[in-house]
Amino acid sequence: QRTGFPEVVWGPGKTPEQIAEILARMRPYYPCVMATRISADVFAAVRSRLGGLHYFEVAQICSTAPILPPAYPGQVGLVCAGTADLPVAEEAAITLQLSGFAVERFWDVGVAGIHRLLSVRDRLETMQVLIVVAGMEGALPSVVAGLVSAAVIAVPTSIGYGANLGGLAPLLTMLNSCAPGIGVVNIDNGFGAAMLAAKMLRSLPQRAATGSM
Amino acid sequence: QRTGFPEVVWGPGKTPEQIAEILARMRPYYPCVMATRISADVFAAVRSRLGGLHYFEVAQICSTAPILPPAYPGQVGLVCAGTADLPVAEEAAITLQLSGFAVERFWDVGVAGIHRLLSVRDRLETMQVLIVVAGMEGALPSVVAGLVSAAVIAVPTSIGYGANLGGLAPLLTMLNSCAPGIGVVNIDNGFGAAMLAAKMLRSLPQRAATGSM
Amino acid sequence: QRTGFPEVVWGPGKTPEQIAEILARMRPYYPCVMATRISADVFAAVRSRLGGLHYFEVAQICSTAPILPPAYPGQVGLVCAGTADLPVAEEAAITLQLSGFAVERFWDVGVAGIHRLLSVRDRLETMQVLIVVAGMEGALPSVVAGLVSAAVIAVPTSIGYGANLGGLAPLLTMLNSCAPGIGVVNIDNGFGAAMLAAKMLRSLPQRAATGSM
Amino acid sequence: QRTGFPEVVWGPGKTPEQIAEILARMRPYYPCVMATRISADVFAAVRSRLGGLHYFEVAQICSTAPILPPAYPGQVGLVCAGTADLPVAEEAAITLQLSGFAVERFWDVGVAGIHRLLSVRDRLETMQVLIVVAGMEGALPSVVAGLVSAAVIAVPTSIGYGANLGGLAPLLTMLNSCAPGIGVVNIDNGFGAAMLAAKMLRSLPQRAATGSM
Amino acid sequence: QRTGFPEVVWGPGKTPEQIAEILARMRPYYPCVMATRISADVFAAVRSRLGGLHYFEVAQICSTAPILPPAYPGQVGLVCAGTADLPVAEEAAITLQLSGFAVERFWDVGVAGIHRLLSVRDRLETMQVLIVVAGMEGALPSVVAGLVSAAVIAVPTSIGYGANLGGLAPLLTMLNSCAPGIGVVNIDNGFGAAMLAAKMLRSLPQRAATGSM
Amino acid sequence: QRTGFPEVVWGPGKTPEQIAEILARMRPYYPCVMATRISADVFAAVRSRLGGLHYFEVAQICSTAPILPPAYPGQVGLVCAGTADLPVAEEAAITLQLSGFAVERFWDVGVAGIHRLLSVRDRLETMQVLIVVAGMEGALPSVVAGLVSAAVIAVPTSIGYGANLGGLAPLLTMLNSCAPGIGVVNIDNGFGAAMLAAKMLRSLPQRAATGSM
Amino acid sequence: QRTGFPEVVWGPGKTPEQIAEILARMRPYYPCVMATRISADVFAAVRSRLGGLHYFEVAQICSTAPILPPAYPGQVGLVCAGTADLPVAEEAAITLQLSGFAVERFWDVGVAGIHRLLSVRDRLETMQVLIVVAGMEGALPSVVAGLVSAAVIAVPTSIGYGANLGGLAPLLTMLNSCAPGIGVVNIDNGFGAAMLAAKMLRSLPQRAATGSM
Amino acid sequence: QRTGFPEVVWGPGKTPEQIAEILARMRPYYPCVMATRISADVFAAVRSRLGGLHYFEVAQICSTAPILPPAYPGQVGLVCAGTADLPVAEEAAITLQLSGFAVERFWDVGVAGIHRLLSVRDRLETMQVLIVVAGMEGALPSVVAGLVSAAVIAVPTSIGYGANLGGLAPLLTMLNSCAPGIGVVNIDNGFGAAMLAAKMLRSLPQRAATGSM
Ligand SMILES: Nc1ncnc2c1ncn2[C@@H]1O[C@H](COP(=O)(O)O)[C@@H](O)[C@H]1O
Ligand SMILES: Nc1ncnc2c1ncn2[C@@H]1O[C@H](COP(=O)(O)O)[C@@H](O)[C@H]1O
Ligand SMILES: Nc1ncnc2c1ncn2[C@@H]1O[C@H](COP(=O)(O)O)[C@@H](O)[C@H]1O
Ligand SMILES: Nc1ncnc2c1ncn2[C@@H]1O[C@H](COP(=O)(O)O)[C@@H](O)[C@H]1O
Ligand SMILES: [Mg+2]
Ligand SMILES: [Mg+2]
Ligand SMILES: [Mg+2]
Ligand SMILES: [Mg+2]
Ligand SMILES: [Mg+2]
Ligand SMILES: [Mg+2]
Ligand SMILES: [Mg+2]
Ligand SMILES: [Mg+2]
Repeated sequence: QRTGFPEVVWGPGKTPEQIAEILARMRPYYPCVMATRISADVFAAVRSRLGGLHYFEVAQICSTAPILPPAYPGQVGLVCAGTADLPVAEEAAITLQLSGFAVERFWDVGVAGIHRLLSVRDRLETMQVLIVVAGMEGALPSVVAGLVSAAVIAVPTSIGYGANLGGLAPLLTMLNSCAPGIGVVNIDNGFGAAMLAAKMLRSLPQRAATGSM
Repeated sequence: QRTGFPEVVWGPGKTPEQIAEILARMRPYYPCVMATRISADVFAAVRSRLGGLHYFEVAQICSTAPILPPAYPGQVGLVCAGTADLPVAEEAAITLQLSGFAVERFWDVGVAGIHRLLSVRDRLETMQVLIVVAGMEGALPSVVAGLVSAAVIAVPTSIGYGANLGGLAPLLTMLNSCAPGIGVVNIDNGFGAAMLAAKMLRSLPQRAATGSM
Repeated sequence: QRTGFPEVVWGPGKTPEQIAEILARMRPYYPCVMATRISADVFAAVRSRLGGLHYFEVAQICSTAPILPPAYPGQVGLVCAGTADLPVAEEAAITLQLSGFAVERFWDVGVAGIHRLLSVRDRLETMQVLIVVAGMEGALPSVVAGLVSAAVIAVPTSIGYGANLGGLAPLLTMLNSCAPGIGVVNIDNGFGAAMLAAKMLRSLPQRAATGSM
Repeated sequence: QRTGFPEVVWGPGKTPEQIAEILARMRPYYPCVMATRISADVFAAVRSRLGGLHYFEVAQICSTAPILPPAYPGQVGLVCAGTADLPVAEEAAITLQLSGFAVERFWDVGVAGIHRLLSVRDRLETMQVLIVVAGMEGALPSVVAGLVSAAVIAVPTSIGYGANLGGLAPLLTMLNSCAPGIGVVNIDNGFGAAMLAAKMLRSLPQRAATGSM
Repeated sequence: QRTGFPEVVWGPGKTPEQIAEILARMRPYYPCVMATRISADVFAAVRSRLGGLHYFEVAQICSTAPILPPAYPGQVGLVCAGTADLPVAEEAAITLQLSGFAVERFWDVGVAGIHRLLSVRDRLETMQVLIVVAGMEGALPSVVAGLVSAAVIAVPTSIGYGANLGGLAPLLTMLNSCAPGIGVVNIDNGFGAAMLAAKMLRSLPQRAATGSM
Repeated sequence: QRTGFPEVVWGPGKTPEQIAEILARMRPYYPCVMATRISADVFAAVRSRLGGLHYFEVAQICSTAPILPPAYPGQVGLVCAGTADLPVAEEAAITLQLSGFAVERFWDVGVAGIHRLLSVRDRLETMQVLIVVAGMEGALPSVVAGLVSAAVIAVPTSIGYGANLGGLAPLLTMLNSCAPGIGVVNIDNGFGAAMLAAKMLRSLPQRAATGSM
Repeated sequence: QRTGFPEVVWGPGKTPEQIAEILARMRPYYPCVMATRISADVFAAVRSRLGGLHYFEVAQICSTAPILPPAYPGQVGLVCAGTADLPVAEEAAITLQLSGFAVERFWDVGVAGIHRLLSVRDRLETMQVLIVVAGMEGALPSVVAGLVSAAVIAVPTSIGYGANLGGLAPLLTMLNSCAPGIGVVNIDNGFGAAMLAAKMLRSLPQRAATGSM
Repeated sequence: QRTGFPEVVWGPGKTPEQIAEILARMRPYYPCVMATRISADVFAAVRSRLGGLHYFEVAQICSTAPILPPAYPGQVGLVCAGTADLPVAEEAAITLQLSGFAVERFWDVGVAGIHRLLSVRDRLETMQVLIVVAGMEGALPSVVAGLVSAAVIAVPTSIGYGANLGGLAPLLTMLNSCAPGIGVVNIDNGFGAAMLAAKMLRSLPQRAATGSM
């Protein structure tokens, strides 16, 4: 078990040397340092300079510490429609797991075939928060929020083409949802969705003990 | 029964005097002349100048002829989520009925409460074409097209606010749908959706008899 | 005390007669029915048709039931910079209070004078969730999220002119925040922010008792 | 002859290994599996791993089954102005042919030289549905829909530069057409246009036998 | 006959008093002073203050001088599809006539019914310059430029709704035309189109006599 | 001397083989065939397959015929501010020269140093048409049109960064010019500007002889 | 003389009662309180409630104190092309004068007639800062910054139509200026331009005496 | 010491040969010639052709002269949040230093951790002008302008992703700032910000001696 958020390094625009150097410098001071948007190629170059790293390929995350058993109560349900959106969804999932939270993955749950979604509805209902990742038209968060009672964090992705406008189309879809109780983060921002879910889960029980509740 | 499309007058930007004058001039030559986007106030002013008109208030359509029994085989299913989108949905419905087609209305079928949609699924499956009208995030056509096998005509509406951008948000949603088999028309263009559905229904059986089929 | 979300009627595009009629019809079945975006003029017309209503002028909300003592533990902090954003901020506040949640208002906390914000920092830190409402450049949620540890729900408003683009500028600001843990809702959508905060607060403790925590 | 839509794999973002593996896994279960957006280079790499594939270079489609004689009545007319739009137009054509429909190609029919279009008008009139593909200003579907009576499916392409905005210009042109009876699909979405045409053609006669007609 | 461009007053944002005062002050010094975007109501108020004015209602132009016989050789052909675009087309026509040029009007020539356009093709071919006015999808200038050999000035109008975006859609259509030889002016800018046509016609013969030709 | 427009091939998206093949096939039938947007590398590959070609490197044009002495009266003045815009300006210049028109180049005439422009004003005034090419803020056509009396064709370029938006900023500048008599073409469309200028110059004198002038 | 910035009230969205009440409440504590965007009608209603106010009609500003002789050294040159932009330019001018700065007005200096600008060049060169206000294409700041050596503050206005996009076109023009040394403020924000000029002028000499210079 | 602005060469789109050639040609005539947007690779190629150059790697600037002691009074404070924005911030800093101005760098001052900013507030208050560089949401200039009294020049950067829109999001944030006294330059335009700051500092004291102050 480990509590407290990891230190996070934003990978894009940094060379493998810089990433290795930052991780090496920070590792002594923090239980977990993670870097995001690290491709397999970049990770290979980082690893050749620094040992003891963990790599999560689909999530494109590397970390100085492994995933440990959850340190916090509750569970975050992660929902997405398929392979194209998986890197963003896994960025959220691994960030949460490295931060000490339990996640359950509901991959392959889409809008165009509503039955798969209905078949997992009961398990979705047991989650404390839901992160729903969707590209293309981005309709999935609306449908999920209409089915279950937990708060929904919606993550638009840049998967699509033409009138998708690099993810602006699903972003707008999510902001305009007629199902209330949806908070939206930036396009492809799985990390930000994880941080928001973590803050929701983490702050409450602790505060309940000491606050005005 | 009556076949052939009505003559259509586009109401906006025309005075009641002009509309009455156009309808009076065209009525002798066509079995049905209709005008769209006619508010109740405008219709009152038109009617004070010209008798024998029929008015469909929700659809904002007035016509020189009544709705007659369907002249064509097949049925168009019209789907929308509720009262705000009804004027656009009814513009499509009345245009189809004045053109001799049978329609079935599925009002109050939304994305945020998927069960109402599932409960009418079997009847939707008997329609030859579906027109799905949606504002806000505009997700309904994707979900419908994933459930039934007929072609879907999607009509975005300008209902919404903020990031809805006057209907651009649902328009983009519909164009990016991951459910194939959806044709999109302009924002609020219930009339255009009706014309597309009518052309689909009308051309086929007739052509089947005389064409290369 | 009263639990369960109110039934909500969206006011725009409905006549006072329609609003009065809907409220009258629903009142027997629900502990609380509320309507949003109701101007003082409209409310006067509604009240002349239906008695026993409560009106919250700044929030532009009318309701069939009064605000009762909080039914849920926890507190939502509401933050905004001043008078222009108050209608949106109050829409969130009153919706939460009618739903049984405790709120604390931090009006007059802006970005251009950071000291007022710093002076309330300790009280902000005791909130379980924060709703931050901002127009113009919309920078307030970033600064707040950098100061306190709770989850932040950011509400852009359409207050501004020129390059504000009807609220798109603060919406983009909030989506791009470099402070993680921010969920964004549609422009002027105080109601949606309240629903998201309510779902966060409500689902957790109850689930904690019965769930896997 | 073969009926039923092919299984479809979306090529972009998948490696040749992944595409070969998916096709191999699905081939035993479906009469036809096709993959779209497969460049000649990618196809060469797929073929070196998996035998028995068919490749349609202009359409950028590969398939586990050949084109067979049409299984359905009716014909889809495909219209475009020239070489630049051909990949999108052929994506539509080959998708239809692999799905069992007859198509007739009208390449080299543009707006700037209206006579070529007029010279094929009679043959266009014998089609049951028309798919019109156009980039640049995207005016072709309007002109075609004004000339012939069948329903028109309009496909904007990203061919152009400057104010073309990656295909947004022809997309807007098509949505605003003053010729009614046009349904629009996403930019470059030849596949989606084919699916819509196929649903129009396929559903009608079958349903006519068993439905309410 | 009268040569030299009129002095022009831009009407919007000026009171009738201001317009009357400006016209009165300038009239002694110029053969012709004209004001644009003058509604019938505004003109009535201007006329009650200043006599001797000429008013062109469809064009929304008032002038201190009448239209005289053409003072320049050549003819400008004005083309548009119908009543909604007429105010813009007439603004161009009357501006040209007040400037001493001959115009021929081709109203009611649209893209959705190409035959009317073909029927006037020979007369269009005798024009020295063409001004083509179109709203909705704005395809008309492309088709005209493909048919005739003169230079085409394209004027997009704000007629339309939804994805028309206040005239941006036809503006983009015209800028992306695949028919070369089209110059575009601002949305609804009939006056600017007239000035461009006038400069084309006027400068040439005079210069031919004295220049390097 | 040579009259009649060249046949034109649009280079982008075509391989050197295809370009060589098209030029070879068309050369026997036309006095001049030209291809645009041909980089030096592409031209080297084309030339290795086909002899007798002429190449204009800055203009990125290759041609089957050389520039001959002007065949038409009049002169087109070409104006731009400097090296970055030269490829677009030269595309216009060479297209005009290959089409038989005389051009005069005014390179290095910008808005930020108005004196160079004033120093060439007299020679600009002797041109029959002006083509003004500008990127960045695109203000040059407004200033030129205010100084000289000929018609101005404005060509925005994609030179710039950030809020330039790929040339949309200068395009909007030119469309909104307060100097009347400016016709705008697509971003980077030097070819289209040349065609418009050519049509202006060419059609007039010829028509003068036979028309109503 | 009076130093220190006035207290400022933003008028839009406030009733005359509210404005009068705020001014009355603040007047005892500040040497000058001003309100912006106050129409003549609103001012009449404010004045009927509160005496001793000064009103600047073109600037749409009302104030509790008159303009006094300049309290600071230096002069701000204000430049604009004409009547339509005057309200914005005067908002800047009066704000500066109420704040104790000297201004010189250069109204009627446009881009389309460059000579008026050249004729005032020497006086412009004696200004310490220039504020240049322009709508339509917004080219004036570029030309001015190329002529004089002082810093230029550019203010786009919403004057224009069509592709002006409510002032976005001149805003983009100004941001993309090829003349360096231009700082841009929001559309129509004369007040903000004045504040920036005032800060430039005010901070320097005072700091020169006591700072590190 | 050295006064007068350097001659500046804009690097993008020029080959190393061209840059070396331009620098060599201009060096004899100017005390300092600098080139911007020069990557380390390009500089290596330039240096292999021309000796005696100075290179500032983070700023991506090369120069024919070194930085000398400040020639002007006053100091420009440069503020940014971190490594990603440094190239733009350094472009401003080095341009100022090569132009003879003193700068003080405040790197690592962000919005999400307001305390670092507060800790340097006193030193910021001693600056005559501030340049604030920010990407992502771009909120930093608002906060800085609310804290200190000097004029603020805001530079948005293209650092970010998704709804950042290549820097448009921070650009809009800065234009809409509720803290008055902010002038904005183009996205990534560190050079332009430096020129504006230099003009503010330079023009004043000199003019004070000879002007009307
Ligand atoms: N995938 C991601 N998406 C969004 N923000 C991120 C991501 N990864 C890291 N960050 C943020 O970037 C910061 C680190 O940036 P840097 O100092 O440039 O490495 C972290 O503190 C996070 O807030
Ligand atoms: N509600 C509508 N939406 C879109 N187009 C319409 C509508 N009503 C009429 N139209 C079209 O407008 C044309 C008539 O325009 P007008 O001649 O101006 O009355 C008809 O032929 C229809 O194509
Ligand atoms: N060219 C295409 N354009 C649009 N959608 C396509 C295309 N090709 C395949 N698809 C869709 O993509 C789905 C397969 O996606 P995937 O599972 O990622 O391979 C299919 O079911 C189709 O609906
Ligand atoms: N014309 C104006 N343009 C932009 N901002 C203004 C204007 N007038 C006032 N303000 C700002 O609005 C603030 C007052 O807002 P309020 O408290 O709503 O009256 C002032 O401090 C100014 O910063
Ligand atoms: Mg999706
Ligand atoms: Mg909906
Ligand atoms: Mg704010
Ligand atoms: Mg085309
Ligand atoms: Mg049209
Ligand atoms: Mg320029
Ligand atoms: Mg101007
Ligand atoms: Mg920032």
